[in-house]
Amino acid sequence: MNNSPIGIFDSGIGGLTVAKEIIKVLPNESIIYLGDTARVPYGTRSKEVITQFAKELTNFLLKRNIKVLIVACNTISAVALDEVEKISPVPVIGVVKPAVNRAVKVTLNKKVGVIGTSGTVSSKAYDSEIKLLDPGIEVFSVGCPLFVPLAEEGVNGKATKLIAEDYLDEIIKSEVDTLVLGCTHYPLLLDIISQTVGPTVNLVDSAEPTAKQLKNILEKMDLLSSKNDPTYEFFVTDAPERVFEVAGRFFGSELKDKIKKVTL
Amino acid sequence: MNNSPIGIFDSGIGGLTVAKEIIKVLPNESIIYLGDTARVPYGTRSKEVITQFAKELTNFLLKRNIKVLIVACNTISAVALDEVEKISPVPVIGVVKPAVNRAVKVTLNKKVGVIGTSGTVSSKAYDSEIKLLDPGIEVFSVGCPLFVPLAEEGVNGKATKLIAEDYLDEIIKSEVDTLVLGCTHYPLLLDIISQTVGPTVNLVDSAEPTAKQLKNILEKMDLLSSKNDPTYEFFVTDAPERVFEVAGRFFGSELKDKIKKVTL
Repeated sequence: MNNSPIGIFDSGIGGLTVAKEIIKVLPNESIIYLGDTARVPYGTRSKEVITQFAKELTNFLLKRNIKVLIVACNTISAVALDEVEKISPVPVIGVVKPAVNRAVKVTLNKKVGVIGTSGTVSSKAYDSEIKLLDPGIEVFSVGCPLFVPLAEEGVNGKATKLIAEDYLDEIIKSEVDTLVLGCTHYPLLLDIISQTVGPTVNLVDSAEPTAKQLKNILEKMDLLSSKNDPTYEFFVTDAPERVFEVAGRFFGSELKDKIKKVTL
Repeated sequence: MNNSPIGIFDSGIGGLTVAKEIIKVLPNESIIYLGDTARVPYGTRSKEVITQFAKELTNFLLKRNIKVLIVACNTISAVALDEVEKISPVPVIGVVKPAVNRAVKVTLNKKVGVIGTSGTVSSKAYDSEIKLLDPGIEVFSVGCPLFVPLAEEGVNGKATKLIAEDYLDEIIKSEVDTLVLGCTHYPLLLDIISQTVGPTVNLVDSAEPTAKQLKNILEKMDLLSSKNDPTYEFFVTDAPERVFEVAGRFFGSELKDKIKKVTL
């Protein structure tokens, strides 16, 4: 038993979808969330810079007595998870492996698509993890860099559909039966992505499998909380008005008064 | 006469359009360019964070013996120019005033549109500068946050046109005869913007008016260079492959081997 909080970090506020799922699956757990809104997005940055930023986020949370660290950003999980693990004395869980486990389980035709940021896709982290579990699976990865700003701005369905058709053309032609949404923002575009790839393709998101894996690990390591009154803290590195707006879209409007700005 | 370099900074690489124009107008001047590619874009961040980042960029260039400082980013010019001026011992030129001077000169019906990032538009910097020169001019400002990623990714003309129609609808209805492109990225979307607002609207970009104002100031202050072999240095805070690609689109592919990564 351990009543310390779970630390969660993300490049911005997309990781709130993971936090929300964790609260649902583990209602007794306290949470400290940190989003690097002053430097988001990470998806187009180099491995070197992503690693440096990820270490700064890790150190911020490690100072707050967390019992486990969730890397709720696909780009960081894909590009810098090993570097975070190196400096963390507590267990680290990224969002890549849980989604890969799920995808490998649900694919029947052994063709899996992966969409993510440029950084995620060029890291080939999903490809490696999938091949590790089942070398017979063919993986088709496509970077969809405009999906993050489109999801955040929430404008023009027609334009988003056209862009989705462009991005997903190759995925559709490859006849995958499973598509991993390899970015926390993409569930906001679920309808458009689903319409574009068609109803027969299974869409696999990271949030729920990650929350379930966290639950398993806390149980196995006897780290579950016994609290009935968990606390939630939300920190961001920049808090312009739009952060509250977008946070509302990801998590719920009740978050507004709880988000605090910090300097790393 | 002064052979020291001109310092230019931007949140990323869009400011290269300004650097390019300066090289054209002032071919004897040496230039040091700094783009904060590790933290771009600034357009959605708070005034507080934009100001902090702008000061760091300023200090980097001030250490390099520059004779004048160009703030080649519309968001920083709109939000934090006064704070940069406070810490700079050399003259500071932003991109807002030169474009406003031009717009005020060319409008005939005294209706001017301004498009920019969310940060630029909500700062009302263009509105104030225009009203200062001519209080009789009506200003219509619209934030176009997706234009930056669309220009950088360079995809799908149809989708970009649909988004442009959404953003510019109000501008068209307001019957402006002049539209300020208040972001260094927007000239990359010139054709689409021009098609959307129609051929009778004058489009005013910052790069050329800023280069001309710089020339005037250097002449007046007797700071022109006497060199025939100017030097150009280009620094960025992160250098993933795409920075070279996009820099090519803004400046020319010859830049590739000249860009150096630095830490602020």
